[in-house]
Amino acid sequence: MSEPIIPTYEGNYVFAEDRPLQLFSGGKLQPVRLRYAIYGKLNELRDNVILVCHALSGSARVGDWWPQLFGDGGVFDLERDCIVGINIIGSCYGSTGPRDINPETGEVFGMDFPLMTVRDWTKSQALLLDHLKIDKLRAVIGGSIGGMQAIQWAIDFPERVERCIAVGAAPLTAMGLALNHLQRLAIRTDANWLDGRYGDNHPPEEGLALAREIAMISYKSAGLLTERFKRKPNRSGENPLRSLTERYDVAGYLDYQGERFTRRFDASSYMIITKAMDNFDPAFGYQSEQAALERIRARVLLIGISSDWLFPADEVQDLSRRMRDCEVEAEYAEIESSHGHDGFLAEPQKLAALLSALLRS
Amino acid sequence: MSEPIIPTYEGNYVFAEDRPLQLFSGGKLQPVRLRYAIYGKLNELRDNVILVCHALSGSARVGDWWPQLFGDGGVFDLERDCIVGINIIGSCYGSTGPRDINPETGEVFGMDFPLMTVRDWTKSQALLLDHLKIDKLRAVIGGSIGGMQAIQWAIDFPERVERCIAVGAAPLTAMGLALNHLQRLAIRTDANWLDGRYGDNHPPEEGLALAREIAMISYKSAGLLTERFKRKPNRSGENPLRSLTERYDVAGYLDYQGERFTRRFDASSYMIITKAMDNFDPAFGYQSEQAALERIRARVLLIGISSDWLFPADEVQDLSRRMRDCEVEAEYAEIESSHGHDGFLAEPQKLAALLSALLRS
Repeated sequence: MSEPIIPTYEGNYVFAEDRPLQLFSGGKLQPVRLRYAIYGKLNELRDNVILVCHALSGSARVGDWWPQLFGDGGVFDLERDCIVGINIIGSCYGSTGPRDINPETGEVFGMDFPLMTVRDWTKSQALLLDHLKIDKLRAVIGGSIGGMQAIQWAIDFPERVERCIAVGAAPLTAMGLALNHLQRLAIRTDANWLDGRYGDNHPPEEGLALAREIAMISYKSAGLLTERFKRKPNRSGENPLRSLTERYDVAGYLDYQGERFTRRFDASSYMIITKAMDNFDPAFGYQSEQAALERIRARVLLIGISSDWLFPADEVQDLSRRMRDCEVEAEYAEIESSHGHDGFLAEPQKLAALLSALLRS
Repeated sequence: MSEPIIPTYEGNYVFAEDRPLQLFSGGKLQPVRLRYAIYGKLNELRDNVILVCHALSGSARVGDWWPQLFGDGGVFDLERDCIVGINIIGSCYGSTGPRDINPETGEVFGMDFPLMTVRDWTKSQALLLDHLKIDKLRAVIGGSIGGMQAIQWAIDFPERVERCIAVGAAPLTAMGLALNHLQRLAIRTDANWLDGRYGDNHPPEEGLALAREIAMISYKSAGLLTERFKRKPNRSGENPLRSLTERYDVAGYLDYQGERFTRRFDASSYMIITKAMDNFDPAFGYQSEQAALERIRARVLLIGISSDWLFPADEVQDLSRRMRDCEVEAEYAEIESSHGHDGFLAEPQKLAALLSALLRS
């Protein structure tokens, strides 16, 4: 896809102006701004909507990060489908987040921003859909944290979701919790962090870059890194045997990714969103996981990626089994890929085949 | 083992006082101090010596970190064996390191300390053994970076090494290089780092703690973390759903390990040693890997740990195959363990069985 996919509509929905939005952690937020993007048109029956939920560093502009799923004969056909993307609260891509001004103090929220959960995201998204008079969703789809939202949607709003597709998503394992913790620690180790109340010109770039680099190794499989980088010296001509700062190619790649990330993402959003990722658990707010899963009415497709070690395929498959134990019509499929967790972005063809099958059914 | 194992002798060997020690990276060091420890006694034939090489954060005092291998009927019988441990150059446990005064500047070396390689370690250790009039080694044994030294010994001094046993050691893969890079980056992100010329009272503790925590997850298997920590909240009574700083148990564990490490290890030593670990490659300084491996005369036992993802068992096994292709009498054995790379310390019984078989042969 060389042409960018332009939303039909993109804008903000502001609500909770009179009364705060009550959050599941006990906190409140007032007002709340949700940035959303719509691709294609709502049909007369208002039944052609597919909600696509984004991952950690994604945005409402689904066409920017999943362009391969659009287009003639693709998964999303804009003559037929109406694709809605909504930026999650806490992100830095348009919705209310920790870089906004806290109306109570007149200063940037920073780490006074309330703790967000995946349920707060689905609840706020549902309010936006109410506002848009979209009652039913043909499907909710997402990868990683986007997949957590898709699952949460199916649990929280069973009557609104017809199909739920989540790729590389399940409650984090202890290893996943550890990796997220280390990433937040990296940000806090940066002297510019200042508990999230840094000036716009002095963000904690080194800490955020390191966080991203730690994340990057968890998004890739060891096999892919070996295939791409082996033990080659950095392509810039460095010689790791000459000095401490000269790097191997894999290190040069990670530093490049880390630096690039600091130009497009905010450290305090990173804190808020990874914490919500930690806390994702179908049981949250319900009597038990079983009680939560039994609510689901959607047809569910959980997709694991064979080399994903952040959300191991086993964990995804196991969640689908637990859903079936609760009489959910849940299927499991696996993408064979060396890309690791990143497979949900890096394997659009394999993903498209699976998505199309369920969406067209 | 409740009784501590006390060395028969512990002291320093200082050399390269008149002429500097020439290093393989091109640098020099003058003088050089090696801290060493001897357990048991050298016999009359001087043929009962086992050199035990330590890993990243180990010391010459083998009895402190491998106590289970000593004792009646154990692998090391001090009535029969003479165990020698030597602290590697660059470490902070007695040998010359980056916290020493650089005689050229009168200040702490910091990152002016010359780049070390595993070959520099074996070369300096050989000079100490010359001084001790120990010509032959019944065995050289080590795990992780200690295993790299054992392999390097067998290559560099084929006529001196009868048996070589390396556990969880091979050239690092791209994933391993990435993990080491991130650990050094964590130290450099600490504002106290100052290129290694920090004051004794202001070490880069946060950076070093984070480096250790990143390392810890690479030393453990995901399965072990799940088994131990699951998704339990931190045992101190924290509630991760209440605030951003409240942790899951695995995070509390990592922070504890990180903090503890800063009280016993130095950040600049961490830099020097992990860099040497990166650069370990049997081919280094020889015409090819084949040319290096063909030099080996020792019986070699390479031991992989089934759940090790820092030095995957496959990599260890593959190295043993390449040795055999060079006519080396090299065997491979695997320890079945969920402990990950840490298995070389955490599975002394399984290790002892393998070591004893080769040592007694």
